[in-house]
Amino acid sequence: MEETFRAALDRCRYVVVCGGLGPTTDDVTRFAAAAVLDVPLIEDKTLLAGIETRFRDRGIEMPQVNRRQALIPEGAAALPNPAGTAPGVLARTGRGAWLVLLPGPPSELAAMFEAEVRPRLEGETGRIKGVARETLMIAGLPESVLQERILDLTPGPSAPEQLAILASRGEIEIRVTGPAGRTAEVRRLAGRMAERLGTAVFSRAAGEHLEHAVGRLLERRKERAAFAESLTGGLIAERVTRVPGSSAWFDLGVVAYANEAKRDLLAVPEEVLAAHGAVSEEVATAMADGARRRSGNNWGVAVTGIAGPGGGSAAKPVGLVWIAVSGPVSRARRFRLPGDRSLVRQLTATAALDLLRRAIVECEGSGWSRGNGE
Amino acid sequence: MEETFRAALDRCRYVVVCGGLGPTTDDVTRFAAAAVLDVPLIEDKTLLAGIETRFRDRGIEMPQVNRRQALIPEGAAALPNPAGTAPGVLARTGRGAWLVLLPGPPSELAAMFEAEVRPRLEGETGRIKGVARETLMIAGLPESVLQERILDLTPGPSAPEQLAILASRGEIEIRVTGPAGRTAEVRRLAGRMAERLGTAVFSRAAGEHLEHAVGRLLERRKERAAFAESLTGGLIAERVTRVPGSSAWFDLGVVAYANEAKRDLLAVPEEVLAAHGAVSEEVATAMADGARRRSGNNWGVAVTGIAGPGGGSAAKPVGLVWIAVSGPVSRARRFRLPGDRSLVRQLTATAALDLLRRAIVECEGSGWSRGNGE
Repeated sequence: MEETFRAALDRCRYVVVCGGLGPTTDDVTRFAAAAVLDVPLIEDKTLLAGIETRFRDRGIEMPQVNRRQALIPEGAAALPNPAGTAPGVLARTGRGAWLVLLPGPPSELAAMFEAEVRPRLEGETGRIKGVARETLMIAGLPESVLQERILDLTPGPSAPEQLAILASRGEIEIRVTGPAGRTAEVRRLAGRMAERLGTAVFSRAAGEHLEHAVGRLLERRKERAAFAESLTGGLIAERVTRVPGSSAWFDLGVVAYANEAKRDLLAVPEEVLAAHGAVSEEVATAMADGARRRSGNNWGVAVTGIAGPGGGSAAKPVGLVWIAVSGPVSRARRFRLPGDRSLVRQLTATAALDLLRRAIVECEGSGWSRGNGE
Repeated sequence: MEETFRAALDRCRYVVVCGGLGPTTDDVTRFAAAAVLDVPLIEDKTLLAGIETRFRDRGIEMPQVNRRQALIPEGAAALPNPAGTAPGVLARTGRGAWLVLLPGPPSELAAMFEAEVRPRLEGETGRIKGVARETLMIAGLPESVLQERILDLTPGPSAPEQLAILASRGEIEIRVTGPAGRTAEVRRLAGRMAERLGTAVFSRAAGEHLEHAVGRLLERRKERAAFAESLTGGLIAERVTRVPGSSAWFDLGVVAYANEAKRDLLAVPEEVLAAHGAVSEEVATAMADGARRRSGNNWGVAVTGIAGPGGGSAAKPVGLVWIAVSGPVSRARRFRLPGDRSLVRQLTATAALDLLRRAIVECEGSGWSRGNGE
């Protein structure tokens, strides 16, 4: 760690280190930092009092090991951590570089960077200008098909605008970036790509996923959806409820892992299960209808399939998935998804949310993006 | 990238690079590798045929952009990728170091390392001996309390055995490691810690989580559990169904996000909801009973609480959670959980699975680990 800190401080004026500030003996970042700064660690009385208070508020006496978290390199500033016991550290090296230590848990890290680090850096450098950036979030197109479709719009390696194409769980993010001064050009390029990609574009906001797009559509229409899941085991409802306020458009999910649950809670007829098997268009459709009726909602969405590793056959191999949407627009679609159990489940959840989104968009009669269709 | 590859090859004999082998223009790892190796990229006919076949099998013509994936540095070996289109690359530098390029998706990466890279490295170096390692997986203890409890067993910084303590989502992993020759000592130390921690230890297998431990207990007892979730929105069922074969002990999950769903599907009485509110011991208990009865299972588990960011009040703040287990052993417990929406949901899922585990263990009359209790 000392070697790495030194190499980074040689190259950069700002070095931010995340993690290793916990109370346990394997949390050694503060020790490495003190060695690199060539100062002793000292116990900060204010920090110690703060940590003790935090424990007292939770009705626990502070364990002695947590004393370590009050140690900071001499001459460094402690950065308060409103969400955890590990304070951060802000230090300057003899050569004027900044060494910033922040805790590892992402929620603490992000909050402390915004509250403590960004203002100090900007106080020194002026506002961090960053780059001009536009985002397109896309679903329902394979990455290589997408790439072909926008090939003639793709900037060359020496152009000021650049593309990054990031695929994750069946969603694809296109980031168009450029220098801070080229906001208009970046926006124009992203706009041309969005037109080209039509309704495959579900959002133009960074950090949005299908569940946000679906939620926005439903909320605007004052409609609700219910989900019936088999192979995804709750993943779709879990993604939906990541969205704060999702109770406005989501009220019920049924994880019907067993056939009895499909029958008893979703009213899938016994004879449909017997005739077609759980992984079939007929059962997916009946599950979606059941979820819609059971909840009294406008929309019901269902997935059934074989996530693997076991359970596949020649006729119904691992990765075979049926997804159905029941509502003002109804449909069922068959998928052959690649990957292991986890990936099949993730891709199924994405495909189900996208099928619902496209059904709602179709129902509205026009895509939100006014794209020229797909 | 070239600078980093060169620095790594200066320091190490084996450099493994992950990612950047995809078809899109921002995937440039192969170009950086060729530059560092100082050889041209050439199109490998066999690779190209394999990629074309892969697309044909899925009924799609290969997009032209995927041709790039058949480019490898002259003199390098292509590593087949059974799970994706991006082949890997294995090259030797003039100075005899190995540069290995593998695709980024974790499932492809892990499979290719095991199938292609490990045997080649071991062919050169002899069997990779690795280290002696034991794992304890722990739930239901704060990290600092755990640390205090094993403080006198913790090896000093110069001892051959070392501890790593990793907390994630409310589960804590203790890894005891030592040189390959000290297997017995490592095992003995881990055993002493396990005794000290008693039933807080839910597994001694690396990579296991609470859902595996709960599944093992239920499967052995030929019992099943059903879950009723409010604030976690399906996360518990999703974690449970990550386990292959979980249909043996899990059949039904209900995501009862709205009060109507709690009433209609879980038979929570309207007057209980009205008198105590959705976030209460009474409603959690009624939900757990409802899940058990509805499924006809031995166990029902329910969670209700306030994940935030909105919805909190002075009496019922964000982070307040009630968890109930209904079965041969029944209980309800109140939690005040820290963190943002995502962390509150994660910690709730962990606490619910742990409450169920401890109820089953209690029901069995003895902990699996024969620890001296907690």
